[in-house]
Amino acid sequence: MKELDFLKIISNTLENNKFLGDDCAFLKDFDIFVTQDTLVENVHFSMYTTTPYLLGRKSVSVNLSDLAAALSLPLYICVSISLPENIKDDFVKELYRGINDVCKEYNVIVIGGDITSSDKIVVSITAIGKRVCNFVTSRKNAKKDDYILVTGEFGSSGAGLYALSNFLYADKKIIEAHLNPVPRVKEALLLAKFVNSNIALMDASDGLVDALYKIAQNSKRTLKININDVPVNQSVIDFSNQNKLDYKHFIKWGAEDYELVLCVSEDIYLKLDKNLFTCIGRVQNKDNNPCVIIQDGASNETVNENVFEKYSFNHFKM
Amino acid sequence: MKELDFLKIISNTLENNKFLGDDCAFLKDFDIFVTQDTLVENVHFSMYTTTPYLLGRKSVSVNLSDLAAALSLPLYICVSISLPENIKDDFVKELYRGINDVCKEYNVIVIGGDITSSDKIVVSITAIGKRVCNFVTSRKNAKKDDYILVTGEFGSSGAGLYALSNFLYADKKIIEAHLNPVPRVKEALLLAKFVNSNIALMDASDGLVDALYKIAQNSKRTLKININDVPVNQSVIDFSNQNKLDYKHFIKWGAEDYELVLCVSEDIYLKLDKNLFTCIGRVQNKDNNPCVIIQDGASNETVNENVFEKYSFNHFKM
Repeated sequence: MKELDFLKIISNTLENNKFLGDDCAFLKDFDIFVTQDTLVENVHFSMYTTTPYLLGRKSVSVNLSDLAAALSLPLYICVSISLPENIKDDFVKELYRGINDVCKEYNVIVIGGDITSSDKIVVSITAIGKRVCNFVTSRKNAKKDDYILVTGEFGSSGAGLYALSNFLYADKKIIEAHLNPVPRVKEALLLAKFVNSNIALMDASDGLVDALYKIAQNSKRTLKININDVPVNQSVIDFSNQNKLDYKHFIKWGAEDYELVLCVSEDIYLKLDKNLFTCIGRVQNKDNNPCVIIQDGASNETVNENVFEKYSFNHFKM
Repeated sequence: MKELDFLKIISNTLENNKFLGDDCAFLKDFDIFVTQDTLVENVHFSMYTTTPYLLGRKSVSVNLSDLAAALSLPLYICVSISLPENIKDDFVKELYRGINDVCKEYNVIVIGGDITSSDKIVVSITAIGKRVCNFVTSRKNAKKDDYILVTGEFGSSGAGLYALSNFLYADKKIIEAHLNPVPRVKEALLLAKFVNSNIALMDASDGLVDALYKIAQNSKRTLKININDVPVNQSVIDFSNQNKLDYKHFIKWGAEDYELVLCVSEDIYLKLDKNLFTCIGRVQNKDNNPCVIIQDGASNETVNENVFEKYSFNHFKM
């Protein structure tokens, strides 16, 4: 778990580390949320499987997803790109056409950044959003009996990545889910209207169970879900069957679905549009060894630290 | 001039490009300045000549320098780092010790960021500063008869880089100027007190003449300076003499001095501490072919587009 080790070192080295931990920082003095995500060639994407246009789109979308998970309205982004010296003008044009299109869809403005040369393509985007909700989202806020909700479907992006990496035929839907994810900004802004206390909310950028486990750990409560309640696209099941793979593995551990994972009280759950939010389980009592329990028919799988370390997404393992 | 070509493409592709042009973006709705600078291994630095601690320091300092050039008070930074998989824990610790030390010196807080793997080391920092001055700085604001002022000394960083790149002995002062530049935050905050109109101000991150030329072009006025009035450290002269180099080339074109270059009216100039700000020339009349004239004794050198393209710093040429 090199990534977590490094985060520990960073947290110990910085004298003021009160902002570290969640994906977005909230700056009280300006009422803004700030997040920064970097995509590195051959780590987060490969130019053999994506296009400059889609890379531009995804670079923005993953940052807007972080702002959505903070129930914040995205407004501005800074774009820093590093490109090989021999890159074509058209690459830059297409990359920025993708950036522009997502910005237009969400009324976001590019306010600056820089462009430098490097061996590999690196896109680092900082996004700034406005506070539109009086309550805070955090991994820490899951409460007993909360409903565990998710937006969209799970497993598509993981299956898409598997198909692309192994040169397998797959339905367009799951390829697109991986290359052009939709940040759940609309859902987050709807949710913000109904929230009446601090809630647990994350995006599932590193996978569904990863998000659930982090909420469980930080809230010190076990989260129990039913895997068969998690929405999944039929094309993920078909793709898995065709290739003798377990589609439930994609649902649980496939990264980059960029869906929202949240724990809210019953009264909020009842107000939400069931077409946008699906209940997949409930939050349990306080627990000294918080974990994720995944119910599948009559059997229960327990995700504790060992299971988590084995399967969770880690950029330093790729 | 690939970098400028790319900036043109970006500006043409983005439908809302009103923020592009200066190094910092000012967000009126939140009263903040935002800037982002990325340092890439073997482009902006080499681990053969710097240390993780100094890299951490410089990564923060170059961003604080951009905020200083906007007369803004630095408050927060987001740090995104990409590191090779086999990097040692101590590297991360030393890098963050450098980041922490500069943050402490300027009361800046690290609010987040991310850590990913990559072949080469990349440090991308976004800095956020508060507006403390009612007036705007921009490359566009040089006015006739303005005094052209600079902070600190020029040529040290360029000479330091030359020494390091060519394995030449050099005084510690010029090596430090390159590896551990001081952002002129203190000078900027002093200046902010006296500014009574929008002024032309940049940091000389890409070199003195580069800054002067950009101000000239954007303000549509020729800037005339006397090269012998530009402060230079004796160690730059000594180093150049020892190695049969022209020290004035380092002053003019050496990048990364991170000093402030500004054009202000006489009444502001008279109020400023002459130990911190040195006058090196005056702004001329409106000009259809704005350029930089460098007076050296009886001779004048004219820096027009051709000369500029030949000598100016360009990350895509390295």
